[in-house]
Amino acid sequence: MAPIIAASFAGGSRGQYRITQITPVIGEGLAPVARLATHERAPLDFGDAAWTLRGTTGHVRYVAQREKVALAAVQPLLGRPEATCAALIPIRKSDAWWDLAQDERRAIFEERSRHIAVGLDYLPAVARRLYQSRELGEPFDFLTWFEYAPEHAARFEQLVAALRATEEWRYVEREVDIRLVKENANT
Amino acid sequence: MAPIIAASFAGGSRGQYRITQITPVIGEGLAPVARLATHERAPLDFGDAAWTLRGTTGHVRYVAQREKVALAAVQPLLGRPEATCAALIPIRKSDAWWDLAQDERRAIFEERSRHIAVGLDYLPAVARRLYQSRELGEPFDFLTWFEYAPEHAARFEQLVAALRATEEWRYVEREVDIRLVKENANT
Repeated sequence: MAPIIAASFAGGSRGQYRITQITPVIGEGLAPVARLATHERAPLDFGDAAWTLRGTTGHVRYVAQREKVALAAVQPLLGRPEATCAALIPIRKSDAWWDLAQDERRAIFEERSRHIAVGLDYLPAVARRLYQSRELGEPFDFLTWFEYAPEHAARFEQLVAALRATEEWRYVEREVDIRLVKENANT
Repeated sequence: MAPIIAASFAGGSRGQYRITQITPVIGEGLAPVARLATHERAPLDFGDAAWTLRGTTGHVRYVAQREKVALAAVQPLLGRPEATCAALIPIRKSDAWWDLAQDERRAIFEERSRHIAVGLDYLPAVARRLYQSRELGEPFDFLTWFEYAPEHAARFEQLVAALRATEEWRYVEREVDIRLVKENANT
């Protein structure tokens, strides 16, 4: 397994991604900014960032072995040249969620909400990486990063809508949806 | 549920706990020091600490609902006046552990190693609190803090020995065992 990677996402006037939309889906939003700078591992000087979100990669929390194999077979890597659309969706879940035991959370997450199975339906079109933020004292519990080609934009909307319609999502108490377009370094 | 609590444990010349022993059980140890200062929430000036270990409390990772109920019924609170013996046992698990899917880790943790059931056998004599450190970029993945009365010292040794004999412990690649005695503020 890759070691824990600490990542930062800074919203401001710099960065490789142009922000096309910041939507407060549930609860408080984030200040509107023009660009997003992302960085993994080494710290970056984000200059005048209006906000910076941090998270770490890590081990799977709910994925069972058979699902891990299924995911590994089809999930694409980040950074595909054609995947110029991206989304960053930070969410925070309620105390009611975190109060549940592991088997209760797993039952809601997969047996009843089919979070993993739904995600599989959209592979390999949509690449994603999950960052954990809760233990870092951040305002969100998770940051999910998505990358897809413009031709799969409608599919991505279906994926997001499917997840938001689940029982799991009733435990989400804050969600912001940030849409991005990757731009070449010389634009 | 209580909010996430960030805790620090600093080994040096200060603190309410006198260190009686620091044993490197697996892998590298920690520098020998005389005292341990512990703090939750607000940061403390630990002065000349030789080492500081950090972690956060949080939700349960493997405990199922029926076990959560059983634990809640018998687990004592920290800070009982008679529980003047304490132990801090930081551990790090191997990449092979973190590479496993959730169901595989749960199977080793409880179905085969009986980690929760073994712990229940030693309640209410031994109070404990688990802190997660992995996402903080710390040298250990977990810090477990134990408190017990001197009359239960032999029981505590049995608990530690029982856990170290499990299949789960084969995935531990670093473990240090720090034993402590709580002293009154005026000693």
